[in-house]
Amino acid sequence: MSIDGDVPGLVVVGGSDAGIMAGLWAKLTNAELPVTVVVRDAYPNFSICGLPFYLSGETPEWQMLAHRTVSQLEDAGLRLLLGHEAFAIDPSARTVHLRDPEGDCHDLAYDRLVVGTGARSIVPPLPGVGLPGVHVLHTIDQARELDLAIERGARRAVLIGAGYIGTELADALTRRGLEVVLVEMAPAVLTTFDPDLGELVGAEVRRHGVSVRTSTTVERIAADEKGLRVLGSRGLDTPADLVIVAVGVRPETDLLVSAGAATGARGAVIVDAGMLTGLDDIWAAGDCVQTHHVLLDSPSYLPLGTTAHKQGRVAGINAAGGHASFAGSCGTQAVKVFDLVAARTGLRGGEAAAAGYQPVSVTVTADDHKAFYPGATPVHVRLTGDRTTRRLLGVQLIGAYGAEISKRIDIAATAIHAGHTVDVLSDLDLSYTPPLSSPWDPIQVAGQAWTGSVT
Amino acid sequence: MSIDGDVPGLVVVGGSDAGIMAGLWAKLTNAELPVTVVVRDAYPNFSICGLPFYLSGETPEWQMLAHRTVSQLEDAGLRLLLGHEAFAIDPSARTVHLRDPEGDCHDLAYDRLVVGTGARSIVPPLPGVGLPGVHVLHTIDQARELDLAIERGARRAVLIGAGYIGTELADALTRRGLEVVLVEMAPAVLTTFDPDLGELVGAEVRRHGVSVRTSTTVERIAADEKGLRVLGSRGLDTPADLVIVAVGVRPETDLLVSAGAATGARGAVIVDAGMLTGLDDIWAAGDCVQTHHVLLDSPSYLPLGTTAHKQGRVAGINAAGGHASFAGSCGTQAVKVFDLVAARTGLRGGEAAAAGYQPVSVTVTADDHKAFYPGATPVHVRLTGDRTTRRLLGVQLIGAYGAEISKRIDIAATAIHAGHTVDVLSDLDLSYTPPLSSPWDPIQVAGQAWTGSVT
Repeated sequence: MSIDGDVPGLVVVGGSDAGIMAGLWAKLTNAELPVTVVVRDAYPNFSICGLPFYLSGETPEWQMLAHRTVSQLEDAGLRLLLGHEAFAIDPSARTVHLRDPEGDCHDLAYDRLVVGTGARSIVPPLPGVGLPGVHVLHTIDQARELDLAIERGARRAVLIGAGYIGTELADALTRRGLEVVLVEMAPAVLTTFDPDLGELVGAEVRRHGVSVRTSTTVERIAADEKGLRVLGSRGLDTPADLVIVAVGVRPETDLLVSAGAATGARGAVIVDAGMLTGLDDIWAAGDCVQTHHVLLDSPSYLPLGTTAHKQGRVAGINAAGGHASFAGSCGTQAVKVFDLVAARTGLRGGEAAAAGYQPVSVTVTADDHKAFYPGATPVHVRLTGDRTTRRLLGVQLIGAYGAEISKRIDIAATAIHAGHTVDVLSDLDLSYTPPLSSPWDPIQVAGQAWTGSVT
Repeated sequence: MSIDGDVPGLVVVGGSDAGIMAGLWAKLTNAELPVTVVVRDAYPNFSICGLPFYLSGETPEWQMLAHRTVSQLEDAGLRLLLGHEAFAIDPSARTVHLRDPEGDCHDLAYDRLVVGTGARSIVPPLPGVGLPGVHVLHTIDQARELDLAIERGARRAVLIGAGYIGTELADALTRRGLEVVLVEMAPAVLTTFDPDLGELVGAEVRRHGVSVRTSTTVERIAADEKGLRVLGSRGLDTPADLVIVAVGVRPETDLLVSAGAATGARGAVIVDAGMLTGLDDIWAAGDCVQTHHVLLDSPSYLPLGTTAHKQGRVAGINAAGGHASFAGSCGTQAVKVFDLVAARTGLRGGEAAAAGYQPVSVTVTADDHKAFYPGATPVHVRLTGDRTTRRLLGVQLIGAYGAEISKRIDIAATAIHAGHTVDVLSDLDLSYTPPLSSPWDPIQVAGQAWTGSVT
């Protein structure tokens, strides 16, 4: 049976960043277009990136994590089907097969379809990974389960994986009063940074009482009458009340793949610059698709909220009859861990070399603002450029919360997007007032060091 | 007589931002080149922009305002002639006539000359402007005199002019415990912003107890046995222990003009993109020269520390035999006033119209970071673009200290430098983490409002 007779219009599957952006921008593009958003859970437009702050207590209520309320979304013209799971697409019949909250199945007709099914947490095949008390964190329900476990008295947490989520959770659970052990296979935390820079964040995490176990591989999780035990290399044998596995995500593509969509990088769905899949009138966006990186020839997988927003916008505009293109990502990311912020954009030296560039990296440390004004703190900058073309390839920044690290990386991201050489950084007319910067921003200081070393 | 026989090399006149940058970059370009810097006072490489923070007490000692110490400058290879006034240049003989600290005159030979004589405070021809207790603030000595006046018991200050220096001084002297009256001829403070945005800063200044008198013209300053009185339009009659005139600066060009240099905008010396004056082997940089603005066809006068640094660097590199060009300014500026930061880049609507553009401006207010994370504050954004070419012309931002306002304006400055359209802002891969931003930065929110309104 059909839910709504003969007003198909645009159907969006997925109620997170990509799906909601697609729906909202479709309405902005064509206010007359009926737009239905199919949301698997009860939480449309919630911030996945906000989950650690709910667990820390800084965001006291999970309801606050909604970017927009259901009423706001409905006022914007979106019809929401909450608690509906889209389990199949029939591209020839232009219908989506749904299961409603009661378990009944329906067909929903579409003229055009946008799929933003997102990603799910990777669960490595470890013995014991299915035990009660072992969690992943990618949904509101998972966060509420974790919160409940803490409320019920969990006091010892082991975090497996020290990426963005792992380090944010180390911060969050420490604030919440738990004893935290952070286990990472790589030699330093934050493996998306060079290890010596990641170690600056590692030191910050330790300074706040977290036990950090790097170069350590978890081999199994066991349970006894006292709780869980996490066992692994280098003598790892740590008791825990709860374990969180935070080793990354994989694209959630079953729906599109079973409908015939092709996949590429890391199993993500292949889309063109307009976010169109190879299937007629089916667009896709966000963590389920592969992403064009402006510095790479081959597509990559970059599951980020910012990218999901941009791609969802492009898909929504195009599905509503407009014209938009996704301009590509620079991989810009920022994370706050205790009192530090780490941010990066573009490629690191190793990544650049693997992509065929001739990378040269320089490292400088410069104050975030003039030392004569109170509170100046060091900004650690590593800047990578291509020896041949002199193009700016990437920047990594580590500095204090409050040192405008996250918007400093955006200067570099904007310069990379523009295709600038490193040399051009000194030409940028950046703002200066002694409480907030220096006449040469630390990124320009790094640029000048690079220019001086590559002649 | 000649100070140093037959080793002329490069002579730099001026020991502030432009002159010191010229000297340092000349040495970096050609380490063998003898470089002599003639400094009128005893304070080479001091931060003029830092003077308000010395007066506020936030920078406890004026000596801290030195970007670099004399030893550091000498270690970098600069010979400093402190307390030497250059009073004439003889371009045909390639000599600079100097007066030393004892009042004796010398000739200093040069092969190449860079002049960075800076600017001096404008003193309007008001009756009483020469009275004791009436100050301007552009040099270390002037700051020390002001500090002394406060130390000796001045408790009531009138500030004439509510630009960057006037508003910073309103903050500084309030912190120092003085009663402050801020008088501005224009309808709002911070006249380099649109009046309604300037008024946000005006409200902040008032909130801290400063009496703000806008649309008020000072007509004269009088003195009686109780101290000074500042009198003007709209019934202004305010007693004061000290008065600071902060109505802007004019270029200090006597030295170059008497040597034959041509002047342009606001009387500043005309230079080419390499900072060469029309005189053989004489470069000039900083507040004494006119500046290329990337959005204007005609040269402008933009006396800013950042610009002086860039121009000094270019002049120094070229004078040492290298090749550099000044890429132009966007007029990027930031100021912290109490707990607010105001920043701008590019052109405002009125400025853009005067320059022949077809400006359209939009105004949005967006949180600096996700509201679910504590401490989110509103960022007021006014964005101006050209209706025909859609080029981004300018951005004005007002927001809380701590809201990364100064580095947010740099995103816009970098985009203007790249010649981007407003539409491109949505493509920029800017960083996002809930404690520090939103998936669309406020500048992108403004860009989308503009794109939606200009179709």
